[in-house]
Amino acid sequence: MSQSLIWNRKDLIDIEPLSRPEIETIFRAATAFKQAMEADNKKQPYLEGRTVVNLFLEPSTRTRLAFEVAASRLSADTITVTGEASSLTKGETLRDTARNMEALRADMIVMRHAASGAPNYLSKVVDIPVINAGDGSHAHPTQALLDAFTLLEKLGSLEGKKITILGDILFSRVARSNISCLQKLGAEVTVAGPSTLVPKRFERMGVKVSHRLKEALTDADAVMLLRIQHERQTATHFPSIGEYTSMFGLNKARAAWLKPGAIIMHPGPINRGVEIDSELADSSQSVILRQVTNGIVIRMAVLHLCFCAHHKQTVHLP
Amino acid sequence: MSQSLIWNRKDLIDIEPLSRPEIETIFRAATAFKQAMEADNKKQPYLEGRTVVNLFLEPSTRTRLAFEVAASRLSADTITVTGEASSLTKGETLRDTARNMEALRADMIVMRHAASGAPNYLSKVVDIPVINAGDGSHAHPTQALLDAFTLLEKLGSLEGKKITILGDILFSRVARSNISCLQKLGAEVTVAGPSTLVPKRFERMGVKVSHRLKEALTDADAVMLLRIQHERQTATHFPSIGEYTSMFGLNKARAAWLKPGAIIMHPGPINRGVEIDSELADSSQSVILRQVTNGIVIRMAVLHLCFCAHHKQTVHLP
Amino acid sequence: MSQSLIWNRKDLIDIEPLSRPEIETIFRAATAFKQAMEADNKKQPYLEGRTVVNLFLEPSTRTRLAFEVAASRLSADTITVTGEASSLTKGETLRDTARNMEALRADMIVMRHAASGAPNYLSKVVDIPVINAGDGSHAHPTQALLDAFTLLEKLGSLEGKKITILGDILFSRVARSNISCLQKLGAEVTVAGPSTLVPKRFERMGVKVSHRLKEALTDADAVMLLRIQHERQTATHFPSIGEYTSMFGLNKARAAWLKPGAIIMHPGPINRGVEIDSELADSSQSVILRQVTNGIVIRMAVLHLCFCAHHKQTVHLP
Repeated sequence: MSQSLIWNRKDLIDIEPLSRPEIETIFRAATAFKQAMEADNKKQPYLEGRTVVNLFLEPSTRTRLAFEVAASRLSADTITVTGEASSLTKGETLRDTARNMEALRADMIVMRHAASGAPNYLSKVVDIPVINAGDGSHAHPTQALLDAFTLLEKLGSLEGKKITILGDILFSRVARSNISCLQKLGAEVTVAGPSTLVPKRFERMGVKVSHRLKEALTDADAVMLLRIQHERQTATHFPSIGEYTSMFGLNKARAAWLKPGAIIMHPGPINRGVEIDSELADSSQSVILRQVTNGIVIRMAVLHLCFCAHHKQTVHLP
Repeated sequence: MSQSLIWNRKDLIDIEPLSRPEIETIFRAATAFKQAMEADNKKQPYLEGRTVVNLFLEPSTRTRLAFEVAASRLSADTITVTGEASSLTKGETLRDTARNMEALRADMIVMRHAASGAPNYLSKVVDIPVINAGDGSHAHPTQALLDAFTLLEKLGSLEGKKITILGDILFSRVARSNISCLQKLGAEVTVAGPSTLVPKRFERMGVKVSHRLKEALTDADAVMLLRIQHERQTATHFPSIGEYTSMFGLNKARAAWLKPGAIIMHPGPINRGVEIDSELADSSQSVILRQVTNGIVIRMAVLHLCFCAHHKQTVHLP
Repeated sequence: MSQSLIWNRKDLIDIEPLSRPEIETIFRAATAFKQAMEADNKKQPYLEGRTVVNLFLEPSTRTRLAFEVAASRLSADTITVTGEASSLTKGETLRDTARNMEALRADMIVMRHAASGAPNYLSKVVDIPVINAGDGSHAHPTQALLDAFTLLEKLGSLEGKKITILGDILFSRVARSNISCLQKLGAEVTVAGPSTLVPKRFERMGVKVSHRLKEALTDADAVMLLRIQHERQTATHFPSIGEYTSMFGLNKARAAWLKPGAIIMHPGPINRGVEIDSELADSSQSVILRQVTNGIVIRMAVLHLCFCAHHKQTVHLP
């Protein structure tokens, strides 16, 4: 099973350095976990007796839950440390916190942090695997992987497919990681939204930049909506929510511009009636809940592969 | 073992629709779990590899702990989502939260909510079993079941027994569910307390309403005290705590009105010296701690039966 | 394996009543767990199916995590109740909370409390084992045990060894428990720091009291630094942080006064640049991370021994 699996990384910090075969290895493992899960064989033994620390120093519910579920489906014990609960509030440095986790013989650290680069720094100061669960505006690699995995399930291949990412691109780690992942898999990516949130300089990443919704959606195979952060409204460059919805909110009329049967994605939690019309979110084109399910198996795959690479173990799959 | 077990429900939302044989099925399963527990065989394999989500959107300690313990004694993995931690604070709807839990392949949802009807609504929008852990002033079925189970252990039968529920009945889900459960098992129920908290219209539920403590306690086989909520004091219809205690607090002199050896119950946490005299709470008549123990096995029974019904599995018991 | 293990206590509340052979029994068990852990056999079956309640009514991250990890490495289910989440906020007494934990058939209680004596009180009102995880300014026995265990690993024996405890001794439970433990193992203990934080009356405990750093460090085999609590600064008898560091902060020049190769300890979390120079904290003399690792195996040993004593079981070790 393992001879052809290409994976030698103990950490997953970013999509950028991954080769296409490496991404495909993750998908292959995720597919195996998904098939087992759908056959009602959810629990796998691969991290039995191991301790996975979820170090979430920026608030998060769904990504944290997804990693907790993924780790326990691999039979690991999980320890969750949130920002409020951490010794960090007593002034300990991030490095000290991480080395303490290692000293209590944690086997892996999953980390979310408000500062870009924190998980990368962490992976240098500890020996055990570090998985980035989202850092600042830098990267959110497991989100990008689960999105691409979901697209592949529906489209078969991403080669030459037109994917539009719509919304608050400027500081979005989800957008950055998705652009990188989709391009590696052969897709043509457009980023779209108001000019204040989608600056022209994104073209340097090899994507099309569009400030006109119709142009951005026409003939797209899929559209990924990003969440509009209510808290961003105070920023001067941000339109009001109402203004955003009226210009860029996805509704039935606008969805008709997409290729027939095109896929609608959203990382959640969704604001119904803001970035997406409620009915559309529940339509057959929407794969929003499928993304949640795939988020579990992608994270199981990443935890499993990084653990095996770190211990130089053969990768077994269900 | 299972042929005579009458249980076909995937959800437990309310006592109201349950037949007496259904209630007795729950008690039969709870008895089996209790016997195993007392034989120091606490852990049962029935939810091995399953994920139970505790969605507690109203603060709770003891009910939450009881469900967590019950689920892990059935070998389930548990995920607890509290109001503070939930994506709901980011504006997601209850339905979206629930469908997300289902999408990450949770097997059951246990829900507490401040709004009456929320668990019922939830059971319509997800396919997996939903257990109501208390909703608004509507119902708290597992509390009523553990109370009746405790009474049966002591009294043998509830047929014709006189049970008085004393305290803040008006908005109490515990009172509502207990009235329903006790009546189905043949008991005669009296509700008692100050007239502002125990309106006459409760008579429509087939109970006696009494505003005189002596009348309410005389010859009762058991009295269930309800917790006096300190936060209710601001309400205009609520007497001061001191006033309540002086008129309706249970003390030794008043307990003498009960039938000799009558049972004293309280769902906890108790306010010593408010609704009950401290010495009485610790007396041999009090079954308060037995209620806690029974709360575990009743919840194990409910989780197990609903899971088996949902999967059309034969119910095995220890 | 067990015939020579001397341990008959169901509770661990304080170091004071322990005999030297009892302390050595704990170390023998900890050594067995550590060897298994280093051989990558972290998970032991001894508390399989058991429930350990962590009742942390004073905030704590690292001690709580250490006990959670220790309990799950013994295969126990863990329930953590923190002050915020507890029914105590609804007015329930400590005794009621504890007896409730017992009623839901918890097998052990680990307790941290701001009030000295709380765990001792608890051990009188419940039948199950109670482990003190730090109470007020009274005792922190597992910290003292892990510290002495760490010293023994490095020094072989504590007989006649000179150990200096430096810092805010006055209200420190860590200092109190360490003095007691180190003396039982034959060490000569000095407590040092500003006279306002290290009163002369500590001499009654049989230790040297020093207010001069050079005197306190010269020829010491080890120095244990205590954490400087930023929140203590408001107290009138407390110097400013800057003042403390300039007079008693450990730096390279001052560490040269110690015996060559002397050991530097700190219970964590460390304030780099306050009570210890950053470089020194990371030097080969520092055993700060080793203390963290040993904290797990010492707690596994204590949980295991107290459980076996309570159940009159033979103690098996890995």
